[in-house]
Amino acid sequence: MNIREMTRPECITLLRSARLGRLACVRDNRPYAVPIHFAFGDDFIFSFSLPGKKVEWMRGNPHVCLQVDDVGSVHGWKSVVVDGVFEDLPKVPALDRTAPAIDQLAPVLDHEREFAWSLLQKHANWWEPGSLNLGATLATAGSHLFYQIKIETISGRQAFR
Amino acid sequence: MNIREMTRPECITLLRSARLGRLACVRDNRPYAVPIHFAFGDDFIFSFSLPGKKVEWMRGNPHVCLQVDDVGSVHGWKSVVVDGVFEDLPKVPALDRTAPAIDQLAPVLDHEREFAWSLLQKHANWWEPGSLNLGATLATAGSHLFYQIKIETISGRQAFR
Repeated sequence: MNIREMTRPECITLLRSARLGRLACVRDNRPYAVPIHFAFGDDFIFSFSLPGKKVEWMRGNPHVCLQVDDVGSVHGWKSVVVDGVFEDLPKVPALDRTAPAIDQLAPVLDHEREFAWSLLQKHANWWEPGSLNLGATLATAGSHLFYQIKIETISGRQAFR
Repeated sequence: MNIREMTRPECITLLRSARLGRLACVRDNRPYAVPIHFAFGDDFIFSFSLPGKKVEWMRGNPHVCLQVDDVGSVHGWKSVVVDGVFEDLPKVPALDRTAPAIDQLAPVLDHEREFAWSLLQKHANWWEPGSLNLGATLATAGSHLFYQIKIETISGRQAFR
């Protein structure tokens, strides 16, 4: 088995095509890892989650690692690791476009949420970790937390014969 | 999507049938996650690795998390998380069965290694993360590190419609 470092464009190709990754977070120097459904958006990873241990831990320590791989082939494997920082995307009221500009809360955040929403919805399956009901809209996402991971570094390794 | 906690026997069934997991470790409160090829042996997870970042980190902080899932079905997913402690399995000289008992070094360790070896070899594919050449024997494992994770807790969640 030969192993080589992947180039950044190769890592990004894998991140763009993948929807499933494993997210690791840390509390008291102990790790916790879970599968997540995500969308890659250049400088950020976007995802949804129900409230729980993962979100609690990431709020306590925002340093996270997303690991994404392709090990389904008998010709070898690829694994990409993204180091990044967890950031809540707070729920904002739907924009009322007739309201004065000063009342249009957090338009930038809203734009990011809309973008991420469209990426995640494009391939959503009901059964994917943290996924929403396919009929849900941003306004009816209910108890789901919407978050992003600001990407710090990306690296990857490939094994081949 | 409904989510429920898995029972311990259900978690163990998944751990026994799986070979691929994702291992998370920690340094300076930052996580690192990689795919590994493992074998489950009741109180321990066994695996091989080439030397590198993962091994360095686990030697510095032995608290690790192994995450194993089955998300390949459209009927839902299962994810099991094992919290445990990394332990090196030092290489010991091959037993010379004609030598006096006092010279037979670390027979217990050797037994564990033989057991793990047989588990890992049973389903080994050349391309699996950290895997050895199929023709390798314990004596020729070369630069591979052989390690175990002493299991502390096991938990799992299942999503279903």
